[in-house]
Amino acid sequence: MNTTVHTKSKITEWVNVFSQLIGRENVLSTLEDRLCYACDGSKQKHIPDVVLQPHTTQQVSHIMQFANEKKIPVYPRGAGSGLTGGAVPVEGGIVLDFTQMNRILDIIPEDLTATVEPGVVTHTLQKEVARYKLFYPPDPASAAFSTLGGNVAECSGGITGLKYGVTRDYILSLEVVLADGNIIHTGRKTLKNVTGYDLTRLFVGSEGTLGIFTQITVKLLPLPEKIQTLLAFFSSPQDAVKASNQIISNNLLPRALEFIDKSSIRCIQGYKKEIKIPSDVHAILLVDVDGREESVQTEISLVEKILTGNHTLHVISAKDNKERDILWEVRRALSPALYTIAPFKINEDICVPRSRILEMLQRIDTVCEQYPSLQIANFGHIGDGNIHVNIMYKDKSQRLLAEKAIGEILRNTVELGGTISGEHGIGNVKSEYVPVEIPLRELNIMKDIKNLLDPNGILNPGKIFQ
Amino acid sequence: MNTTVHTKSKITEWVNVFSQLIGRENVLSTLEDRLCYACDGSKQKHIPDVVLQPHTTQQVSHIMQFANEKKIPVYPRGAGSGLTGGAVPVEGGIVLDFTQMNRILDIIPEDLTATVEPGVVTHTLQKEVARYKLFYPPDPASAAFSTLGGNVAECSGGITGLKYGVTRDYILSLEVVLADGNIIHTGRKTLKNVTGYDLTRLFVGSEGTLGIFTQITVKLLPLPEKIQTLLAFFSSPQDAVKASNQIISNNLLPRALEFIDKSSIRCIQGYKKEIKIPSDVHAILLVDVDGREESVQTEISLVEKILTGNHTLHVISAKDNKERDILWEVRRALSPALYTIAPFKINEDICVPRSRILEMLQRIDTVCEQYPSLQIANFGHIGDGNIHVNIMYKDKSQRLLAEKAIGEILRNTVELGGTISGEHGIGNVKSEYVPVEIPLRELNIMKDIKNLLDPNGILNPGKIFQ
Repeated sequence: MNTTVHTKSKITEWVNVFSQLIGRENVLSTLEDRLCYACDGSKQKHIPDVVLQPHTTQQVSHIMQFANEKKIPVYPRGAGSGLTGGAVPVEGGIVLDFTQMNRILDIIPEDLTATVEPGVVTHTLQKEVARYKLFYPPDPASAAFSTLGGNVAECSGGITGLKYGVTRDYILSLEVVLADGNIIHTGRKTLKNVTGYDLTRLFVGSEGTLGIFTQITVKLLPLPEKIQTLLAFFSSPQDAVKASNQIISNNLLPRALEFIDKSSIRCIQGYKKEIKIPSDVHAILLVDVDGREESVQTEISLVEKILTGNHTLHVISAKDNKERDILWEVRRALSPALYTIAPFKINEDICVPRSRILEMLQRIDTVCEQYPSLQIANFGHIGDGNIHVNIMYKDKSQRLLAEKAIGEILRNTVELGGTISGEHGIGNVKSEYVPVEIPLRELNIMKDIKNLLDPNGILNPGKIFQ
Repeated sequence: MNTTVHTKSKITEWVNVFSQLIGRENVLSTLEDRLCYACDGSKQKHIPDVVLQPHTTQQVSHIMQFANEKKIPVYPRGAGSGLTGGAVPVEGGIVLDFTQMNRILDIIPEDLTATVEPGVVTHTLQKEVARYKLFYPPDPASAAFSTLGGNVAECSGGITGLKYGVTRDYILSLEVVLADGNIIHTGRKTLKNVTGYDLTRLFVGSEGTLGIFTQITVKLLPLPEKIQTLLAFFSSPQDAVKASNQIISNNLLPRALEFIDKSSIRCIQGYKKEIKIPSDVHAILLVDVDGREESVQTEISLVEKILTGNHTLHVISAKDNKERDILWEVRRALSPALYTIAPFKINEDICVPRSRILEMLQRIDTVCEQYPSLQIANFGHIGDGNIHVNIMYKDKSQRLLAEKAIGEILRNTVELGGTISGEHGIGNVKSEYVPVEIPLRELNIMKDIKNLLDPNGILNPGKIFQ
């Protein structure tokens, strides 16, 4: 399917059919409405022909039956906060907007599970389960607005990955509408299950290309009693990386272990008056330790000792939740703050084995040196080897140069045993680099599975595969 | 492929070819040798035509190329400790014995990973990583002899499932030889990775029907500092189940939370002179709490308080590792000890949402009442809802009756939202019951994936699907 052109008369026919299937009020067809669904976090713009807002699984099924019959591209969308174009309707057609399917269907504390519709916002679920002293660990930076459906599609990670894993580790069961409209159920709402192949995890991270999730059952954990936070300044990234390695080699598994490099620091200097960052600070570590009160005290002292032993210039310890929030606000402000360096940004999320981080940072520096007009800022989840490499450039004419630099960085990542995407997914933004990491044979197996489940190629076409 | 008959001349030809491919000393063809590979933990007997002991991935690849060309069934085998017939060569052909590919290739503490060949015994890996103060959590009862290859094939669980998850949660990357001999690599040796579909977890739990694992990279955790163990006696299973639910609703996640019922208790009475079980004990809970020393102390006191609050008759607390081992020896002795009830046993491993456990136990009782000549003993991982239901019978003539009872129990399990296999897999032992849990549409997707990866149906034929 290579055409994005759908005739006006066809679209009018679709609008009529979909109005009958899900009600006229749930079919958005004006240009103004459709424009709102043209972009996502990747800042591309492709206007869909029609936007549908289903309220039930049955409606999704009916929509898919028609779309499959007429071979109309279907782009499922949560909050549209993804960074790799996963929700962008690159070939026009239908955007399936799941914001109306946003109910938490149940939270069962005895089972440590919750079942939600795909439009539930991640943070809403986190807050609701916290009322039962339960914890949904995956915590992407976008948690305040991203949806569970999007999280499952991208297999979102976040700052808790080192200790708690990623989205796939918390999905027990899915209700999925297939490309042909058939409704299937994968997994069981049990903590263990090995009956048949693991279709659940085949769908997790499939970026909306294999099926559409209409119900998601997640596994929960008891809410940690206490979280304690430290912010440590270093004069060199080497010291910061060494300290983070020592934390883990000392049998500690922090809830978060974040790294911020010199270029990134410059952008957040002065952002919060409570936090003064002296000019000789060239790297920052941000550490969260969680668990039972008494073990958190022990572990935070151990972490502080390790930081001090690695030439930290200064350690700030949050005394309470308010201070903790301030420290984390600095980290959260980072991604938008980078625009103070330059107005354009390409945001990568490579992940390498942690033992290769220092080498990776050095290789990024080497690539940078070849492109003196670009600026590179690195920060991210150093605990799990997941570094957000941000290539900043001044005007659009530098885009190709920036992409060339990205290409080199991704090739270096794979050489060091890493992956080109730790948590953001591929979408259409990174699809050209997939063959750098995944050999043809493995890629063909993936394509065969895609063809099996979506023979007409209507589910999120233009994503993952080129 | 429905024939198990391979002519003598064909087998002689195979022996010659395989001798050239992997060396005559690695090809076992005498009846005595082959008999050793006819059974597994499921006590079936099917003699393979030839047993091959490869030493390298390349050798496995060459074997598969020939087997695929000649359409010879191939049965990969680790320790043969599986309980559902996964390693049994039901259609003759080749057993691929992986005991010679048993090297730990690396343990990288900075990366929290280890890479092993499939023949490494689970407990060997656990011991080796413990030397670096690292922890490989999946802990099937068979860990002392089962292999990582077998664990990955079955997605083994074990006693640590509630807190630490199962095998799939610890597999980062696989080297797989496909049915046609091609060698592929899935995933990356990184803690995060979302590039392309999750082929790794498609292979985990596929019971040797989709591909053959030749290298396995696992994720490790820091070794918990301390483990503390309690054994609690109850006069009713209701009290024991209530206590276990309260432990979890009190924000505790024990490393192990095991249940033993009245019939099972009878079999282990007097097994260890150190542990006297009075005759009014009708249920036992065994609880392990692990973590940092100070939090373990807090949590074990909380657990003890909950046990006492639920009418426990007596609580034994292990003072040291020696006493801990004694308590666990009683639990481990359970499965073989059941033969004191009757000489024949069918061992099931149903898993239900924990809130349904009491109802499930009641339903099992109701089924039992209809079959007074059978005896049923239940024990297992109550923490994650995974109960081993053991149907004991006196002579072979009762086999059909026992199978009828099993059928009813499995149907009840699925009715309560459970799965017919929590951790043992399906093999050929449970394949007739798969449609009770998995609807036709989902089953057909699984079969399509099987056909995609193994079009000639040579990989572990006769397993999972009927």
